[in-house]
Amino acid sequence: MARIICAGLGPGDPDLISVRADRALRGAAQIAYFRKAGRRGQARSIVEGMLAPGVTEYAMEYPVTTELPFDSPAYIEALARFYDIWADRLASLPGEVVVLCEGDPFFYGSFMHLYARLKDRVEVSVIPGITGMAGCWHATGQPITWGDDVLSVLMGTLPEPDLVAHMQRADALAVMKTGRNLPKIRRALESAGRLSEAWLVERGTMPGQRIAPLAEVDTADCPYFAVVLVHGHGRRPEIAE
Amino acid sequence: MARIICAGLGPGDPDLISVRADRALRGAAQIAYFRKAGRRGQARSIVEGMLAPGVTEYAMEYPVTTELPFDSPAYIEALARFYDIWADRLASLPGEVVVLCEGDPFFYGSFMHLYARLKDRVEVSVIPGITGMAGCWHATGQPITWGDDVLSVLMGTLPEPDLVAHMQRADALAVMKTGRNLPKIRRALESAGRLSEAWLVERGTMPGQRIAPLAEVDTADCPYFAVVLVHGHGRRPEIAE
Ligand SMILES: C[S@@+](CC[C@H](N)C(=O)[O-])C[C@H]1O[C@@H](n2cnc3c(N)ncnc32)[C@H](O)[C@@H]1O
Ligand SMILES: C[S@@+](CC[C@H](N)C(=O)[O-])C[C@H]1O[C@@H](n2cnc3c(N)ncnc32)[C@H](O)[C@@H]1O
Repeated sequence: MARIICAGLGPGDPDLISVRADRALRGAAQIAYFRKAGRRGQARSIVEGMLAPGVTEYAMEYPVTTELPFDSPAYIEALARFYDIWADRLASLPGEVVVLCEGDPFFYGSFMHLYARLKDRVEVSVIPGITGMAGCWHATGQPITWGDDVLSVLMGTLPEPDLVAHMQRADALAVMKTGRNLPKIRRALESAGRLSEAWLVERGTMPGQRIAPLAEVDTADCPYFAVVLVHGHGRRPEIAE
Repeated sequence: MARIICAGLGPGDPDLISVRADRALRGAAQIAYFRKAGRRGQARSIVEGMLAPGVTEYAMEYPVTTELPFDSPAYIEALARFYDIWADRLASLPGEVVVLCEGDPFFYGSFMHLYARLKDRVEVSVIPGITGMAGCWHATGQPITWGDDVLSVLMGTLPEPDLVAHMQRADALAVMKTGRNLPKIRRALESAGRLSEAWLVERGTMPGQRIAPLAEVDTADCPYFAVVLVHGHGRRPEIAE
């Protein structure tokens, strides 16, 4: 029966993987990772050059989504069956398999759907990772929170009025799942009076990293790996002149 | 003139330090870290056994706080001068100095006060780390957020009505700076109707880690390294029976 290890890969730069996950990846005989059909997959790209020769790879390709909206009952059903099938396959593998996961696996990670299906059937251990949003705030060169700032993490998939309400109340913000939601996120920040403080970070710590004030960006063209940030200002002991 | 590297140490387990920070720590000839006067210091404890022989250590001891409340103008002033002095000292050191920081340095870290004072004077680079709260949610063995859950990060130092308002609106919660604030945090969760979902994680991933439902805990006795968590439940493709 399989033993599953999920390795959090951090934001993208392989140097930001934890020592424990690095060791698990380099020693793995079998790995598995999610990707869109026909793509290389971000998780797989991060570990390029780190794997042992002869490693067996399982690419878990999401069901094709061209006709179905991602929140339709039919697509959600297809996804549930996809996770069921892969949970069964991984559980039946001989020995240890390392599942790759971008960022931190327990923070909005797809692995959690496998975890929910596997944790009572086989041995599963999960190695934390630095989140993508942390890679992004480091890319801005500015701390995200100070003193007693409130940080709210929002998904761009939320309805616009919900985004606005949360944006008004928190001090610092991280908005994930941007992509096609970026025009809505921008409007919500504007309604909340916070657009001028917002940064867009694309591909934080990855090749092709880009940082720009959100107000100056073309919101029609945003990659999947992008986070909108508003930094907090908190209480802080003032600097002597 | 000094070059400053701040190494995020992650939640406590040295195996969760990033590969880059691990390398910087093992190669350091000079390190500096904050601690309370008379204590070992958590950051210093994490790297025990990792440092090169003959490393020079600078313990930056917080000004003593017995008479002054932590939010009094006098204490804030004392703290500002303390950061001024250490920024000057570190800037004048010969060569590279690695500053230790628990968790992620740009996430409510004390290092940020040095960073604000040093970044325009000397070369400063900052290595991200896994946050303490992430170590804590992994300790519970349950993902913190799913689907489009909103996560709010709150400081236990906030006024009780602010805590209640944020606790009512977010799906998932992480409350830091617990310690003496734990009775207030517990009351706020109760007012927000969320006490029964809350976990207290003490010393996540460190020796002496403890996890308990907050409702069952004696709130009079809580260490500095403790986080209160409420997990989100999000949308998720249901598991086949
Ligand atoms: C399904 S979530 C997975 C989050 C992941 N488990 C983590 O801890 O970061 C995917 C979202 O994470 C964000 N993201 C993750 N890594 C990123 C990076 N390096 N740069 C920008 N955005 C990133 C993007 O907003 C993307 O839409
Ligand atoms: C000043 S903040 C520093 C946060 C740190 N920079 C981080 O990224 O986690 C200190 C607070 O972090 C939380 N904390 C950090 N590490 C922790 C751990 N391993 N277990 C429990 N709480 C932790 C506690 O709530 C503590 O009061």
